[in-house]
Amino acid sequence: MGRLKRQLEFIIEIDKLKHILRQSVLIQDRRNENDAEHSWHLTVMAMVLKEHFVDQDVDLLKAMKMTIIHDLVEIYAGDTFCYDDEGNGDKLEREIESAGKLFSILPEDQEAEFWSLWEEFEERNTKEAKFAACLDRMQPLLLNSRTEGHTWKRPEVNRDKVLERNMILKDNAPALWQEVVEIVDRAVDRGQLRVTN
Amino acid sequence: MGRLKRQLEFIIEIDKLKHILRQSVLIQDRRNENDAEHSWHLTVMAMVLKEHFVDQDVDLLKAMKMTIIHDLVEIYAGDTFCYDDEGNGDKLEREIESAGKLFSILPEDQEAEFWSLWEEFEERNTKEAKFAACLDRMQPLLLNSRTEGHTWKRPEVNRDKVLERNMILKDNAPALWQEVVEIVDRAVDRGQLRVTN
Ligand SMILES: [Ca+2]
Repeated sequence: MGRLKRQLEFIIEIDKLKHILRQSVLIQDRRNENDAEHSWHLTVMAMVLKEHFVDQDVDLLKAMKMTIIHDLVEIYAGDTFCYDDEGNGDKLEREIESAGKLFSILPEDQEAEFWSLWEEFEERNTKEAKFAACLDRMQPLLLNSRTEGHTWKRPEVNRDKVLERNMILKDNAPALWQEVVEIVDRAVDRGQLRVTN
Repeated sequence: MGRLKRQLEFIIEIDKLKHILRQSVLIQDRRNENDAEHSWHLTVMAMVLKEHFVDQDVDLLKAMKMTIIHDLVEIYAGDTFCYDDEGNGDKLEREIESAGKLFSILPEDQEAEFWSLWEEFEERNTKEAKFAACLDRMQPLLLNSRTEGHTWKRPEVNRDKVLERNMILKDNAPALWQEVVEIVDRAVDRGQLRVTN
């Protein structure tokens, strides 16, 4: 298959991301959010919140590439709820298999770029990956804060687990971390998030 | 309201874009696509298809910022079907009002950036705006090509109108334009797009 045909085939295949549902619900009608919407939201957040990231040298283009593609591997692997310990056991394995299947539709140089961006995001060692991870934590937290703690009400979730989950913000985006703590404490006050299970 | 509070308020407000439905339907389950999904899709396309744009100096970061935010103005103005002449009469006026309302939630410097990106996209004079426009034309065409010409079957649409709508690709992305013509001709052959009304 020619180069452009492979690229178009990839673009058509990733339409499936719009069907991968997350645990979070939308503020207005409380239907489940999907991965394409979530990725779109993170990418706008990267533009708006960059100044709060601790390292101002963060490469915004690279960070936006990461936020826009970071969930593509869920097309065949599905979404795994972050507080689901069992599901998270074989998550990486399933996602690597999914990435291999999906990215290989692309021409080789682009296949390599998508692999590299996704691995960098997963490893969270570079500033762009850390920035993207901060956004990926904060976005569902904002949705929860406006939907009466929708996913926080699940039996396995509590205040400590939510704070632990968002801990990457503490050193990497202190102003955002302060918001996180306020939002979490307000949710506890309102009975939308329990302190202990 | 402090700077960060305004930014977070904006991020929460734009959740509404996920409710703005387009005419196109998704390939898998044929539900209507929404603007957030469409914007996500365009932004991945920008990464994958950049090499086919006539000017290799196109600034990918700026183009991706445009594709990710270009439909935000539809949050209050709604989506207008591109072949709806009446709806398109007051489209710009409605969208300017919507932009004013939405972008002013942001701190002033970011309000100015969002206005500037959106206006540049709408004016289609710069290379980034032309590239974004090419993607914005091609994405629904790809969905139509895999959903038996879903929106092309509407009574006001025909082959010439679809080609006219995609004309920006002819000079700006010749390889993509060739695909467009092939896709359109195939749809005509299959009875999914009429030649005359
Ligand atoms: Ca539009």
